[in-house]
Amino acid sequence: MTGFVTLPVEEGYEKFSLELAEKLGADALRNSDGTILPDDLLLEKYNIYSTLCITRADQAWAGNHMEHCPEKYLMSEPETAFSNEIQIDLMSSFYKEKYVIDTRHDPYIYWEVRDRTSGMTVEKSSWKFNRDTGMVSVCDCKKYHQYTVSFLVYQIWDSVSMYNHLTNNWTSPHIVATDPYHPASYQHMMEYLESWMDHNPDVNVVRLTSLAYSFTLDSNQYGSAKFVDWLGYTDCVSPAALDDFEKQYGYRLEPEDFVNKGLYNSTQLVPSKKYLDWIDFIHHFVNRFGRDMVDRIHKRGKKAGLFWGDHWIGVETYSELFKEMGIDINIGACEDGNALRRLADCPAECTKEIRLYPYFFPDVFCEGGNPTGESISNWVKIRRAMLRKPVDRIGWGGYLSLIKDRPDFIRHIQGIADEFRSIIKNGGKTEPHSSGLKVLIINSWGKRRAWINSISLEQQFSSARADVVTIFGSNMLECLSGLPVDVCFSSFDEIIENGIPDDIDVIINEGVTDGAWSGGDYWKNTVLIEAVRNFVANGGGIIGLGSPSAVLHEGRFFQLSDIFGVDLETGKTLDRSSLPFQVEGSHFITDDLNGKFDAGLEKTYIRLTDRKAKIVAANGKHIYISANEYGSGRGSYIATLPYSSENSRLLYRTILWVSGRDKTISEWFPDNQFTECAFFPETGMIAVINNSGQPQRTVIECCKNRKMEINLQPYELTWIENDKWS
Amino acid sequence: MTGFVTLPVEEGYEKFSLELAEKLGADALRNSDGTILPDDLLLEKYNIYSTLCITRADQAWAGNHMEHCPEKYLMSEPETAFSNEIQIDLMSSFYKEKYVIDTRHDPYIYWEVRDRTSGMTVEKSSWKFNRDTGMVSVCDCKKYHQYTVSFLVYQIWDSVSMYNHLTNNWTSPHIVATDPYHPASYQHMMEYLESWMDHNPDVNVVRLTSLAYSFTLDSNQYGSAKFVDWLGYTDCVSPAALDDFEKQYGYRLEPEDFVNKGLYNSTQLVPSKKYLDWIDFIHHFVNRFGRDMVDRIHKRGKKAGLFWGDHWIGVETYSELFKEMGIDINIGACEDGNALRRLADCPAECTKEIRLYPYFFPDVFCEGGNPTGESISNWVKIRRAMLRKPVDRIGWGGYLSLIKDRPDFIRHIQGIADEFRSIIKNGGKTEPHSSGLKVLIINSWGKRRAWINSISLEQQFSSARADVVTIFGSNMLECLSGLPVDVCFSSFDEIIENGIPDDIDVIINEGVTDGAWSGGDYWKNTVLIEAVRNFVANGGGIIGLGSPSAVLHEGRFFQLSDIFGVDLETGKTLDRSSLPFQVEGSHFITDDLNGKFDAGLEKTYIRLTDRKAKIVAANGKHIYISANEYGSGRGSYIATLPYSSENSRLLYRTILWVSGRDKTISEWFPDNQFTECAFFPETGMIAVINNSGQPQRTVIECCKNRKMEINLQPYELTWIENDKWS
Repeated sequence: MTGFVTLPVEEGYEKFSLELAEKLGADALRNSDGTILPDDLLLEKYNIYSTLCITRADQAWAGNHMEHCPEKYLMSEPETAFSNEIQIDLMSSFYKEKYVIDTRHDPYIYWEVRDRTSGMTVEKSSWKFNRDTGMVSVCDCKKYHQYTVSFLVYQIWDSVSMYNHLTNNWTSPHIVATDPYHPASYQHMMEYLESWMDHNPDVNVVRLTSLAYSFTLDSNQYGSAKFVDWLGYTDCVSPAALDDFEKQYGYRLEPEDFVNKGLYNSTQLVPSKKYLDWIDFIHHFVNRFGRDMVDRIHKRGKKAGLFWGDHWIGVETYSELFKEMGIDINIGACEDGNALRRLADCPAECTKEIRLYPYFFPDVFCEGGNPTGESISNWVKIRRAMLRKPVDRIGWGGYLSLIKDRPDFIRHIQGIADEFRSIIKNGGKTEPHSSGLKVLIINSWGKRRAWINSISLEQQFSSARADVVTIFGSNMLECLSGLPVDVCFSSFDEIIENGIPDDIDVIINEGVTDGAWSGGDYWKNTVLIEAVRNFVANGGGIIGLGSPSAVLHEGRFFQLSDIFGVDLETGKTLDRSSLPFQVEGSHFITDDLNGKFDAGLEKTYIRLTDRKAKIVAANGKHIYISANEYGSGRGSYIATLPYSSENSRLLYRTILWVSGRDKTISEWFPDNQFTECAFFPETGMIAVINNSGQPQRTVIECCKNRKMEINLQPYELTWIENDKWS
Repeated sequence: MTGFVTLPVEEGYEKFSLELAEKLGADALRNSDGTILPDDLLLEKYNIYSTLCITRADQAWAGNHMEHCPEKYLMSEPETAFSNEIQIDLMSSFYKEKYVIDTRHDPYIYWEVRDRTSGMTVEKSSWKFNRDTGMVSVCDCKKYHQYTVSFLVYQIWDSVSMYNHLTNNWTSPHIVATDPYHPASYQHMMEYLESWMDHNPDVNVVRLTSLAYSFTLDSNQYGSAKFVDWLGYTDCVSPAALDDFEKQYGYRLEPEDFVNKGLYNSTQLVPSKKYLDWIDFIHHFVNRFGRDMVDRIHKRGKKAGLFWGDHWIGVETYSELFKEMGIDINIGACEDGNALRRLADCPAECTKEIRLYPYFFPDVFCEGGNPTGESISNWVKIRRAMLRKPVDRIGWGGYLSLIKDRPDFIRHIQGIADEFRSIIKNGGKTEPHSSGLKVLIINSWGKRRAWINSISLEQQFSSARADVVTIFGSNMLECLSGLPVDVCFSSFDEIIENGIPDDIDVIINEGVTDGAWSGGDYWKNTVLIEAVRNFVANGGGIIGLGSPSAVLHEGRFFQLSDIFGVDLETGKTLDRSSLPFQVEGSHFITDDLNGKFDAGLEKTYIRLTDRKAKIVAANGKHIYISANEYGSGRGSYIATLPYSSENSRLLYRTILWVSGRDKTISEWFPDNQFTECAFFPETGMIAVINNSGQPQRTVIECCKNRKMEINLQPYELTWIENDKWS
């Protein structure tokens, strides 16, 4: 069996490209970023993907239309008034090769000066912009107050181009993007697409690596990352869009709505109604823009592919509108089970393809790099998620020259291609047997940010590179991604409006205090609280992770502490003695752990508030896990849940426990926590996986009370036919 | 040299009592709590202290006037409405032997029912109190909301009596206190005092162990501590006092002003204006009551002593009014340098006496107890503070029978008595040489709570006993208590009104987020911010500890992060990359530490916000200590500062650094961080102490650039005459 695999080709390595395609059973080839697909590879045997970054494609046009560069609001660093007048150097903390101040549009209309000590806006008559120096002078300052200017800039160097330049010491010209919101540029891009298709008749799939807008990646004066938000709607601001927004929504967005005190509406913050409106506004435009391109591509009999990545701001892949865009192949970069589910669960009907890591790039394929290790670690996470929700294709990207002399790595990815095809074949895109439990993740974003990580505090203090998302600390979604449960997402607004759907078994709320995922002030909303308590009291289950329902209100911190039986001590209740507790000798939730819960965290400051709650794991007086009854339902609190095979199992056990299923579990529940299995009733095939780097023996019980013992090599996937069951 | 020492006597151990008094050179004897001073000890040689707990003295009166028992507001535990009507058992979480519901005063006037989900008050027509069952029924409840009742109780068992009973398994009758706010009881107490003095003509010092009110110690249904606040003004509420308060202040205090969402105005919280008014109101009453007693005592030619402890609520020893009370001998329980300074710095002119720990009580004098170890650990802290600010006397309390057969312990306290007298003699109550620097601690309480600890989160999670204050974690005041600097305290209100006094060199703000000491919302006040920035910009120094100036406002968390150069990451700025830093190779602040700062804390989540700030200590990306320039002044942030000799030295070095004195230090600055010295210019004597349990060698440089090397035994105090200086 071959196929279902996409590989890049590289100019100068044509022969190796074809050999590798043969070895891996690839059926599609694509040119890498920055290389052109060589003609002699245009064989009947392969589908040909070719990348088109439409907003960056025509650099001649871009250079001649710098007034159509993407714009954005920046906030100058707070400047202290040591006297009654100050000079603010707007660009002092920003990279001058990347941004130029927009002097075309009247600063006194589009900009704002704020007193960040009092929080007040400064009268326009009190400040003056000097076009020659790029300085704003503010008079009538209050001494020792700090002032900022929110100002518009043109981004004259594309963020991704800049990243590649600086990482690889490139000296080629800077790539400039163009904002299609400007009608002339929009029109030009459509013409360019048509012309590009004229010149590339053999391309089967136009792989749109970019739609309209880049994610947020602001660069400081030294050219390094100052602010990163992979889902930030900052780089799509133009005076024209602001004006149109006002017409459509009946109010005007102010500079502060974008810079937000310098926090720039980070995805980790509870989004304001205005920011959600802005997202919708941009989404509608991007959808129209994308659909226009897809229609043209389809007219030529080609397929449209879309790469979910750097330039997908405005795409909103979980919206109803996105389905209308008509993308044929959605391609997601995929480093773990969470990313797999992000793509696999997308409701649009289309081919789904993951691009695996590591990308063939010098950052990993270098002295000291460990591409095979990284790939294995990713693949075991992706594989377990894939056994719950499959995708249609896999692929790799980057420079083949970098892997040419790495036979071990090539053998390794051959193995991945074969394993993937075995899943396609034996799973047959049918539903695996599951617990039947439906889990609802509730947070401020809901479906809009399905399978997007709640980034914990550990990130900033553990990550070696600001520009790479590696999850440190708690990672509930990763644990969840491979569990035999249905997963769906709701926003608090949806619950406030419609309540909790009847078919939900378990709710999960996770996140840091006052962030988008936990929900902050939403938890003062009595309708939300009533809905959740009603759900649990009538037999539902709830799991709180980190700081669930956390907001200081009426003397408590976790507003659902009555359900979890625990609360976070913030120093407010310090003089009120913590209730005494004993950790349970054994509990269904932790029965696999042999008493060792790996929280990756010593102190939680979680204290018992309800004597009847059971404490399942703790470090001294610092509670890790609680289990509590509430009406006919149950709640459990987990302080932190780093991803591991053991912790995934613990999460599954917690889901079973809170939903009252702790007595009935045995079918398709391997007795070894390092292994998992997926039974596909329609094909009669059973996948058994070893998530660990050690050999494992596991016993699986099937529906007819029969048992089988299986021995697995490190990381092995093995298939068993159900009728061969002993 | 003898004298300056007070010892307890115990009935049945008269001979031992006198032998011990002889050994320790005591000049005053007092009866222990619960014992009566035997007649044959009334010798001319000794001053005789006798304890009088006036509010608990006449149990016959108390039993006949149960309507004069102290009252207080309690809040029932939040009760969830699973239907539209609920029954709340008011006393379900309180100890029924300690409290009875006040049914004398109309519940519908004095009580309040609250919806703790919405935060709203429930109409009086919607609830009903059943006197027979002690239940409140609430109708028209909102389902899944939680309800509480704030209700008045009589406290029918004194907290201290109850503690002693439960600790020692006593079976004697419960002691009932009486609230002197009731005129008849007030009058009776004065008569009792007169009569008591008639019957105790040989007593020289009436040691008022109680004035009017106990501190807050609420007991749960099992009789253990539910809420403890050593400075809480909860147990002094009576309908009469509430009515008088309204007449005097022009507004009425509501139940919520006392129960405060169940947090009961903990001293660790930023006090409300209303709570401060209530403290003042009670303080005025207690002062009148105390002065009345003192006047009567003075009329008999006796002295009045006051023990600062369990029943000193309302005393407010740092107020101007307290000076007028006329107490002759103030006696403070003293476990460390902080407690020593609390007494020693009190502005009232009087004799100051410390009662050392351990108290001779079975909790320490038992199998496994280590009274000598505890005493040494306390004494070395007290001694260094005493060398900065002396007191007049020391003493011990408790049951002599418990130490009778412990010759080692007796020898140890003999040594303490001798060391204390050497300080009295050689220091002569004169000013020791100091750095001349004036340090101002700023927090919500100011002088009102001078030398009262900012209790950290570690307390609740580290303390084995809820009823004992042992400081875990950061303990800046203890470090400060023995340093050669002047220390004073200001409230934020004072600074907002009057600014920062001209003679201040260094400001310190310390505490947990949103607590009384850090200040919470006070830091949104622009007048406060302006005053502090102005102070530093013009050459002042500031030290921030823990979460200084912490309140989320205008995008930052530490409002003075511009001065400290660092801020706490709370997840709001997560996507904004932390600035990179390198820990300084060496810095004046940490020059003694050899690179090891003992923070007692791994992760701080403190990140760099100002590139020009120096990072002096860090754990990976988690910053411990910063040092920054601001205008002509300096700021330093310290994440946590547990007490140790090394960390005291580090604090002193930080004070020197922020005040710009880092170049001029050498005089009277021992080169060994485990040692300290105090030079008394007026007596020409120099004390050198070893704070460690190991022998130390230290070199001290005096004003004339002469040096001396001194060898010290573990914990040794040695005196050197200045003219013997080599």
